[in-house]
Amino acid sequence: MKLAIVGATGAVGHELLSVLEKSTLTFSELQLYASPRSAGSTLTFRGQEITVQATPDGPIPADLILASAGGSISKALAPVWVKGGAVVIDNSSAFRYDDTVPLVVPEINGEAALAHHGIIANPNCTTAIAAVAVWPIHRAYGVKRMIVSTYQATSGAGAKGMQELEEQTRSVLAGNPAGHEVFAHPIVFNLIPHIDSFQSNGFTKEEMKVVWETHKIFGDDSLRVSCTAVRIPTMRAHSEAITLELERPADPEAVRELLRRSPGVKVVDDPEAKLYPMPLTSSGEYDVEVGRIRSSLVFDGGLDLFVSGDQLLKGAALNAVQIAEYLQQKGALSGTASPA
Amino acid sequence: MKLAIVGATGAVGHELLSVLEKSTLTFSELQLYASPRSAGSTLTFRGQEITVQATPDGPIPADLILASAGGSISKALAPVWVKGGAVVIDNSSAFRYDDTVPLVVPEINGEAALAHHGIIANPNCTTAIAAVAVWPIHRAYGVKRMIVSTYQATSGAGAKGMQELEEQTRSVLAGNPAGHEVFAHPIVFNLIPHIDSFQSNGFTKEEMKVVWETHKIFGDDSLRVSCTAVRIPTMRAHSEAITLELERPADPEAVRELLRRSPGVKVVDDPEAKLYPMPLTSSGEYDVEVGRIRSSLVFDGGLDLFVSGDQLLKGAALNAVQIAEYLQQKGALSGTASPA
Repeated sequence: MKLAIVGATGAVGHELLSVLEKSTLTFSELQLYASPRSAGSTLTFRGQEITVQATPDGPIPADLILASAGGSISKALAPVWVKGGAVVIDNSSAFRYDDTVPLVVPEINGEAALAHHGIIANPNCTTAIAAVAVWPIHRAYGVKRMIVSTYQATSGAGAKGMQELEEQTRSVLAGNPAGHEVFAHPIVFNLIPHIDSFQSNGFTKEEMKVVWETHKIFGDDSLRVSCTAVRIPTMRAHSEAITLELERPADPEAVRELLRRSPGVKVVDDPEAKLYPMPLTSSGEYDVEVGRIRSSLVFDGGLDLFVSGDQLLKGAALNAVQIAEYLQQKGALSGTASPA
Repeated sequence: MKLAIVGATGAVGHELLSVLEKSTLTFSELQLYASPRSAGSTLTFRGQEITVQATPDGPIPADLILASAGGSISKALAPVWVKGGAVVIDNSSAFRYDDTVPLVVPEINGEAALAHHGIIANPNCTTAIAAVAVWPIHRAYGVKRMIVSTYQATSGAGAKGMQELEEQTRSVLAGNPAGHEVFAHPIVFNLIPHIDSFQSNGFTKEEMKVVWETHKIFGDDSLRVSCTAVRIPTMRAHSEAITLELERPADPEAVRELLRRSPGVKVVDDPEAKLYPMPLTSSGEYDVEVGRIRSSLVFDGGLDLFVSGDQLLKGAALNAVQIAEYLQQKGALSGTASPA
């Protein structure tokens, strides 16, 4: 099985290589693609140097392509790659809302991936982190309403987002203006309640992604979901305060027990010991931390909880590799790509 | 009218002096008190140097005392000051839940201050900032449920909170460990979903203050309120994402119009022009910024909104001075203090 990464030099690409090194996915060859300006550089994978190639306009000679090079590249080229015989797991939002494209979090709807027509979409990072924690609760208690407020890291805007935060911080501490290019305003010692573009209903696209994608991944459009998405001055890991109205009343301790048995999440919920989800502890971790689990004060039998997860991992690279592992375990990935 | 500030050298004390300089409150004398270790230092007020005195154990020879020296000092000494003839406006939580003590935001329930028995409580900063924005909506549309997620600045823990963030930031950027004393964990490039102590119901006291105090200030215990309180690495101004279920359906544009006519708030809600509430713009401002006003996706006819307000001002010093101004306008403050 020949594997290719498109967007290998970006923040998610970097994590893809790291996750693949530890993955059980077997492949005979790894090709790395990026923009022409990164072509010729080398990246190390399991001790071997691999030269980065410029992403071609035509097909890529691989059986599986993990794409993380932005929506416009995926939109234009993924159908070409599929025609060339590849299965594409796409990290952009280009195909997520296409009814013929599965949107997959393996812990939730892995089997949906098997019904692909060449492209499988990887969800928005904020959605994936909330979904993996809320899904076991939804199955056991039936979520009616889900209200999310996010605390999103600068690396959600890629490596350049983290660089901007660091540069602004150095500048401000030296008594100079913050300046800003990546974000709409300075983010150092500030927050920005604006991620992605505004929609006509007053929500941002980032906020609506949580609504649309939760519906699609859970296979349940009746769930009422809302989100306020806020960028804060952290480097990595998105956190979310989540309030749930439930069909059947939930006891917090029973929910902790349920989540301890659930894949993809780690219960970090011992407030007296000062243990709760934080970017400091969830960054670099595969599992999404979930804690502050308590009975809702506004919904009888409902819940409040707080999650923190590495959005470059479960929210992107890790989830993509887990989809690939799932396909391979099910025998749904083969080395049938024709040479380009 | 003789005025005294207890806790004059703290973060709120500093703001009290600044707000009083611009206030219409008339007084014949200003006395400044702080802990013994600050005694003998001087602070400047309207160009005059005033020597800080150690807070005495007994009465203070003033008609009005603005106290911001922490709950234990207020608890012990406010009754003594009242016996000595003073009216006390107390910024601590010591008396807020005492049924005989009014808890006042002048824009909402100023008249409650007139019924005091010597002590008037100033609300928790997070509550005051939300309340001033939500009150006009509550009056017009009837709030049934109010779900709050906070983004709180380090200065909520006083000047030492801001110092810790700055020191940690310098340390981390130099490649050294963050260290921490004021907060339970490092706050630089992190968040901490833990403010004040945990209660038996899993909520923190900071979160429950929003519930208890909103009920008391609005004079309505039927309102269902919940809160998740989170410290983030900002210096000043608390922000809050607020979701409202309403008795009567609200149109976002009508709510903007209503809030434009309401005291204590400033509508900052032009997303296309990248205008929304942020600590960067609300810090140092008297009015609480309110924006991101949009129709709720989870409550038919309900609202989502985002607020940002300077918690040292409307959340503390400004509100205390506004209570004093209100009392003086109503002729309820007189120079009757007996000399100590």
